[in-house]
Amino acid sequence: MPSWNDGPAKEAILSFAVRVTKADGPDYVAPAERIAVFDNDGTLWTEWPLYTQGFFTLERVRQLAPKHPEWCRRQPFRAALTGDFKTLAESGAKGINAIVGATYAGDTPEEFQAEVSEWLATAEHPKFKAHYDRLVYQPMLELLGFLRAKGFKIFIVSGGGVEFMRAFSERVYGVPPEQVIGSSIVTRYEVVDGKSRLTREAKINFIDDKAGKPVGVNQFIGRRPIAAFGNSDGDFQMLEWTTAGAGPRFGLIVHHDDAAREAAYDRRSSVGRLDRGLDEAGKRGWTLVSMKNDWKTIFPPRR
Amino acid sequence: MPSWNDGPAKEAILSFAVRVTKADGPDYVAPAERIAVFDNDGTLWTEWPLYTQGFFTLERVRQLAPKHPEWCRRQPFRAALTGDFKTLAESGAKGINAIVGATYAGDTPEEFQAEVSEWLATAEHPKFKAHYDRLVYQPMLELLGFLRAKGFKIFIVSGGGVEFMRAFSERVYGVPPEQVIGSSIVTRYEVVDGKSRLTREAKINFIDDKAGKPVGVNQFIGRRPIAAFGNSDGDFQMLEWTTAGAGPRFGLIVHHDDAAREAAYDRRSSVGRLDRGLDEAGKRGWTLVSMKNDWKTIFPPRR
Repeated sequence: MPSWNDGPAKEAILSFAVRVTKADGPDYVAPAERIAVFDNDGTLWTEWPLYTQGFFTLERVRQLAPKHPEWCRRQPFRAALTGDFKTLAESGAKGINAIVGATYAGDTPEEFQAEVSEWLATAEHPKFKAHYDRLVYQPMLELLGFLRAKGFKIFIVSGGGVEFMRAFSERVYGVPPEQVIGSSIVTRYEVVDGKSRLTREAKINFIDDKAGKPVGVNQFIGRRPIAAFGNSDGDFQMLEWTTAGAGPRFGLIVHHDDAAREAAYDRRSSVGRLDRGLDEAGKRGWTLVSMKNDWKTIFPPRR
Repeated sequence: MPSWNDGPAKEAILSFAVRVTKADGPDYVAPAERIAVFDNDGTLWTEWPLYTQGFFTLERVRQLAPKHPEWCRRQPFRAALTGDFKTLAESGAKGINAIVGATYAGDTPEEFQAEVSEWLATAEHPKFKAHYDRLVYQPMLELLGFLRAKGFKIFIVSGGGVEFMRAFSERVYGVPPEQVIGSSIVTRYEVVDGKSRLTREAKINFIDDKAGKPVGVNQFIGRRPIAAFGNSDGDFQMLEWTTAGAGPRFGLIVHHDDAAREAAYDRRSSVGRLDRGLDEAGKRGWTLVSMKNDWKTIFPPRR
């Protein structure tokens, strides 16, 4: 993990990996049980000043607005139309997934993912002036690779839409679609003119955030992970449930304290608010990562 | 696949596997896309004369009945109490999952799975006089192993309860819990006296049957399988959606036509009804397996 500075955070990761893989040690964990869950926004890539999926939906809302005069009065559509990032961020996973449902209803999952891929290939982040999928955290990519080499199976567990993430998770993180858990909208199976298809509906199915995260993890994975990685209070319950299991457990929170290289925000932020996690990480034995001090670099080198 | 007789069914399986794995062939499929989905009841193990999960719930309903006088009047509880397999089977995935929800509400997933494991270790099938988890189909176990050796990733996609199957899927089929998709009840995350837990509620979350199967597959796997295996009209849409994709596709239906060694049932059965699938398998290019003619043996040798 060359982008990690030596220090307690890196030390905690390495020592946990040694403990669970030492075949004759007291804390050995069989490979099948080496499940690690990672939040996405703010943990694996930037969420500042707005979740990437928020930016993605902004453009679509603007395109479709002429057909939906009511959006000027209805939140979170109004916020999307007026570029009010704060209100949009505060609407959270639920708000953004509601917009995605409404704006992409009628698509098949494949059509929707093609639109996400096309957007990722062209759109540019307003602050960092790069494609969004280049704004992943280099130290976290190295951590994913390190854990994989130690026999871990990596799952992404995000408040973001599962089909949004599946458009890029394999290419960007090496995480295949069947290892991505997220919020979802209702999808309907139908046969139209003799052709079978799945159709996305404008209705939320599941919100994979806060107490929804352990529920989603249990529903999709069916066993309790031994390691959980997040950055906000939306990840609190996932870390709490993961680290409450028997045997060796690991919890880690990325703290955005690097105004110079990315952004500094925590307790009062409308994106990725980290308040309770900051208070309780120490007493719960969770590792708090300072982006400023623990990471040599934030983003991968420019291509 | 030593338990398969030579014939068109075995030939179709082998030839599909050759086509998709031939690296320089026109039908080559990359390993990551070699997803195969299998129904469980009636496809991987016996469902006759009642789904195994039906037997499991019968006992529990009888235990709890004194506390629930209303069950004598309410279906499908009444059927469970009176041993009316036909009505219970006709209540389908929804009925059985409703009973499981009601009878095991309040358990954690771990507690529920421990109860399933204990039951499987002791209960005996009324007809075949063996533990239920010995009543798996030997030819299908060999098929799972064959596909794995060809680089396929196997998912179980069942109308049965996902947490019921996860209690045995890894041990019996070699399919880890994160590759099991099924019906589910609502689970709530809560912290009780400072201890975090998931609690099963008496409310259905998702029914993974009929048109629910392609929906569940998309939700959990996020890509369309290239091969699907089932035995009843509950699997029809899963086979339809799987085989409608581009490139090489494979669909297979196990036909229960072996009254001597297991059971003969199809169009008019209350368990695993196979009617439309029987009519349409031929014209859709799906392989129809005759248990009587294609399988040398049904169950694994007695231990």
